[in-house]
Amino acid sequence: MTNWTEIDQCARAWLKEAGDKIILSFQTALQIKEKTNANDLVTNIDQETERFFAKQIRQTFPGHRIMGEEGFGDDLKDLSGVVWIVDPIDGTTNFIHQKRNFMISIGIFENGESRLGYIYDVVLNEIYVAVAGEGAYWNDEQLPMLKETTVDKAVIGINLTWLTSNRLLDPAKTLIPLANDVRGTRSYGSAAMEFAYVSTGRLDAYITMRLSPWDFAGGKIILEEVGGKITNLKGEPLNLLEKTPVVAAKPRLHEKIIEEYLKKGIQ
Amino acid sequence: MTNWTEIDQCARAWLKEAGDKIILSFQTALQIKEKTNANDLVTNIDQETERFFAKQIRQTFPGHRIMGEEGFGDDLKDLSGVVWIVDPIDGTTNFIHQKRNFMISIGIFENGESRLGYIYDVVLNEIYVAVAGEGAYWNDEQLPMLKETTVDKAVIGINLTWLTSNRLLDPAKTLIPLANDVRGTRSYGSAAMEFAYVSTGRLDAYITMRLSPWDFAGGKIILEEVGGKITNLKGEPLNLLEKTPVVAAKPRLHEKIIEEYLKKGIQ
Repeated sequence: MTNWTEIDQCARAWLKEAGDKIILSFQTALQIKEKTNANDLVTNIDQETERFFAKQIRQTFPGHRIMGEEGFGDDLKDLSGVVWIVDPIDGTTNFIHQKRNFMISIGIFENGESRLGYIYDVVLNEIYVAVAGEGAYWNDEQLPMLKETTVDKAVIGINLTWLTSNRLLDPAKTLIPLANDVRGTRSYGSAAMEFAYVSTGRLDAYITMRLSPWDFAGGKIILEEVGGKITNLKGEPLNLLEKTPVVAAKPRLHEKIIEEYLKKGIQ
Repeated sequence: MTNWTEIDQCARAWLKEAGDKIILSFQTALQIKEKTNANDLVTNIDQETERFFAKQIRQTFPGHRIMGEEGFGDDLKDLSGVVWIVDPIDGTTNFIHQKRNFMISIGIFENGESRLGYIYDVVLNEIYVAVAGEGAYWNDEQLPMLKETTVDKAVIGINLTWLTSNRLLDPAKTLIPLANDVRGTRSYGSAAMEFAYVSTGRLDAYITMRLSPWDFAGGKIILEEVGGKITNLKGEPLNLLEKTPVVAAKPRLHEKIIEEYLKKGIQ
């Protein structure tokens, strides 16, 4: 029988410990490398942080499996058993350029079912936590269920890169009309931060064309716990083993965005 | 002889007092009104905050004049004497939707010359201050002069609305190539916050098509104090009495953005 209370306590303690190490790292020079392209960066701190989580998880819960951004996890082909999906630093460019606006994000699943979700804003020392079925919290404060809004009153997270080149959507038929109809758009450069913002109602929606499972695993569990909806561009459930576009929003707004905007230009 | 030390001390004390009142206001319902359009909002707290500054300034410095967003200042036709340019809440939509990511912004000028600049992040309790000619500070920490960067390594603040409708620039010749060439774009919904980010190097540039003097007065003083450049789209000085587009950046990057991108599509 899985002891979820123990897992939760360990996850929180490790997040705090990892966060403290990241803050300390601000005092030393970062080693920055390019991954797939010049704008896809990784630092020694991303790697050390993931290695820390992998080591702790393997020592404490040897039966659990790990999927991580930086390759210290297991090579998962399925989601059987308990799986930790870890992004040690979500928003690496912000980490490098801003020393803020990056998150540690963790989603823990059992046979593919949501169990525990964490987004930890290391610099602000704010933690967003969800225990699936039992509620979500921002620090010690329980998050209320999301209140609906209309498109014209919505503030949505979306990066302008998706208006300049987009293989999935025709911007002229989808994102440009949407951007013109909403109250405002924001872009923070960390998917986990945007999920935390949608989960707290600071954003009404977040739309992006390409996330990896570690980018959305923690956020999905937290957002769904407050009644939010998170799918691909067609409204279908996200696949936790694949890269995918993501639409996350209050549920009626989510439906409106997909039906009245995105579906008009899926290519 | 103007006592700038006294003015600085008063400004800091009033910012703190105004910020405390704003934090307290989170516990009561906001009154929200539309100004020029459905997305141009003002709340009772914007108005009360500006009224507070206007009252304090008039009581303490009866010879000073005030330009404010909400109309409690004077109707200025020129910048003679000491002028306080006040934005009581820069980022009102964020204030309403997020209860964070809004700033109090103040620029103080003497016969049009920069003297003191303030951007106060009420929620994070972070203050950005510049004494013209004597340096800029983030809280107690002196801000270093900005280090240059190249376009391909730049992270810039720009809202996607300027890609969807723009009377000043042809996006296809200017902002879209720029967005494709930089490392990343961000948008925070508060001009003062974006100036604070450029001044601390968290952003390398910030471009927007339409600001009022209260949106940029404080930020201009702070940014110039760390060696940043802030102009209109043609590289000309900003007029403190008019609405204007704004390009703020590290100086060589500023020149590159204007010469190699914006000038190709000014319309």
